[in-house]
Amino acid sequence: MGPATHYLNISRPFLMYRGGELPEIRIAWESWGKLNEAADNTVLVFTGLSPGAHAASSAEDPEPGWWEKMIGPGRPIDTDRFFVLCINSLGSCMGSTGPASINPATGKPWRLSFPELAIEDIARAARLVLEHLDIQRLHAVIGPSMGGFTALAWLKQFPGTTSRVALISSACSATPFAIAIRSLQREAIVTDRNFRNGAYTEDDWPEVGMRLARKLGMITYRSAGEWQRRFGRSRQDYFPATLFGMRFEVESYLETHARKFVGQFDPCSYLYLSRAMDMFDACDSDETLKGLFRRSFTGHALVLGVDSDILFPLHQQRDLAGALEASGSEVSFHALPSVQGHDAFLVDFDSFGPPIREWLG
Amino acid sequence: MGPATHYLNISRPFLMYRGGELPEIRIAWESWGKLNEAADNTVLVFTGLSPGAHAASSAEDPEPGWWEKMIGPGRPIDTDRFFVLCINSLGSCMGSTGPASINPATGKPWRLSFPELAIEDIARAARLVLEHLDIQRLHAVIGPSMGGFTALAWLKQFPGTTSRVALISSACSATPFAIAIRSLQREAIVTDRNFRNGAYTEDDWPEVGMRLARKLGMITYRSAGEWQRRFGRSRQDYFPATLFGMRFEVESYLETHARKFVGQFDPCSYLYLSRAMDMFDACDSDETLKGLFRRSFTGHALVLGVDSDILFPLHQQRDLAGALEASGSEVSFHALPSVQGHDAFLVDFDSFGPPIREWLG
Repeated sequence: MGPATHYLNISRPFLMYRGGELPEIRIAWESWGKLNEAADNTVLVFTGLSPGAHAASSAEDPEPGWWEKMIGPGRPIDTDRFFVLCINSLGSCMGSTGPASINPATGKPWRLSFPELAIEDIARAARLVLEHLDIQRLHAVIGPSMGGFTALAWLKQFPGTTSRVALISSACSATPFAIAIRSLQREAIVTDRNFRNGAYTEDDWPEVGMRLARKLGMITYRSAGEWQRRFGRSRQDYFPATLFGMRFEVESYLETHARKFVGQFDPCSYLYLSRAMDMFDACDSDETLKGLFRRSFTGHALVLGVDSDILFPLHQQRDLAGALEASGSEVSFHALPSVQGHDAFLVDFDSFGPPIREWLG
Repeated sequence: MGPATHYLNISRPFLMYRGGELPEIRIAWESWGKLNEAADNTVLVFTGLSPGAHAASSAEDPEPGWWEKMIGPGRPIDTDRFFVLCINSLGSCMGSTGPASINPATGKPWRLSFPELAIEDIARAARLVLEHLDIQRLHAVIGPSMGGFTALAWLKQFPGTTSRVALISSACSATPFAIAIRSLQREAIVTDRNFRNGAYTEDDWPEVGMRLARKLGMITYRSAGEWQRRFGRSRQDYFPATLFGMRFEVESYLETHARKFVGQFDPCSYLYLSRAMDMFDACDSDETLKGLFRRSFTGHALVLGVDSDILFPLHQQRDLAGALEASGSEVSFHALPSVQGHDAFLVDFDSFGPPIREWLG
């Protein structure tokens, strides 16, 4: 939530996909480039679980964004040509309404009284921003990781609204391995003595659980091969060495990342978004994936993945590409040779930039 | 520790590899079959992190052991021919001295005052059992998982004492990925509110941390592919469903396994053994792996691994086999096509049985 963030406030009830409602919502978004006369040059970017709407820097906010090298003048998502829009997910804690927001009925944070969140809700909340901007049709929707789920939830609910879709290191639903990992992350949070069934305070933050959750996340976001190259069995001297904690460089690396994350992200937001990822299934309405694409999309699809991704393994991207092809769409599928695992799309711009630039046309 | 367990009590100090000493030690072991006249038919089996010496049932103890289908009359490790010996690791809590044992100087459990444990100590403690039985030379040493580390520590310290060695789903040292996983398991235990720096009690057991550690273990012991086949996205109805905990079958599977483990294994034993695995390096004395094998072993080596193992990945077994071959030994190397990950050696007897039977001659 920087100086370039916009907020859309909707003061009517928002019905949740799995039941319940929010009496009002706020959606945080940021944009780059200009909407053209025909209002047909919008590139909508959905995010992974933790990032906010600040995907790139701008004159108003020079702070680098989470996809800084991907979005900008002359960059793969070229803001000289496109009106690029990134929307903070409903349920997150980076400006949009989520479990950390105040429930107007009680004057207190929602926390665990927040209704169950679905990926479909995130897509529908984003749609409100597009309506607010009076944009009917998109040039492209781009979804990396959880954002790929959101892009699929978009197609499901708003068929025929985009000419291009990019599903990056994503899938049509989570594997049991990914569910198991997230289940453990949630268990670490809810069993933290400070979590107190959601009644945690600024002074007694569930740091222990959040730290474990983040470290486990990092283990699945990167790859064993990358760590072998980067760390091997090197020792660390950044933190005091301890018998059971800090001896190896890989341990201090995890600790450094965890410390950065712990205070920044709301534990309940994490729980709701994490479970929404487990529950998402593009085909939960007895529709095949091919049927979903045939009904909702005609255009040029891009599917990217890397073979070192253990959270969204490459066979899931193959399945997406196969269904898109079978539905009659033009599909560019690239299995990229990155060693950086699931997070490769955040760091390996040499691999991910060119296919995105080409696909955007 | 069943009715077939034997105990060797050594009442002189045991010097630890990384410093410190134990004033006395006890080693638990079990055996099957008979030692022959020449005392040259012993097959020594080292264990993974958690199992005890009860590898198989017998007349004295009909309870199935952890390698029940592998050891017995006519089984791959044939007790009609071999004197099979399984030794509970020093540092464990299954009969041998470990952090849960009483420190004779204080009359209280050692817990965190136990000296740092090394895999080399486990091998040296096992050696005392062999000396007690007056066995000079072994027909074979078999080490699966952590047991493979122990087998290497055996060769390092007792060169030329065995005609055969089997390294199963093991390595010459841990990858940074494996270290990261174990680091998180330890962090979950030591941050449990009941851990109290080792002063936990029967009534206030660090169950939360042990449960998380065990679940994370299970995630890395099996494979994503196996879970895809077994569970897919099936829902569970075994435990009450909860929004953030129990909805999917994979979640109830993990919970069931964790509940079995939590009360059975001592948290401090887990910490010491876990860190000993991180620290082990067959080549920590400036010796190459090839040099180690050349110095310590001439005979027939067996190296087994599976391509779905993420904890001891197949390239590590290839490295072992390559070094053994380069050292001049006869090597049988099998990359087995099991989907069951690191734990395949405990469950997939159709794949692991035949090569072990053949190699034993």
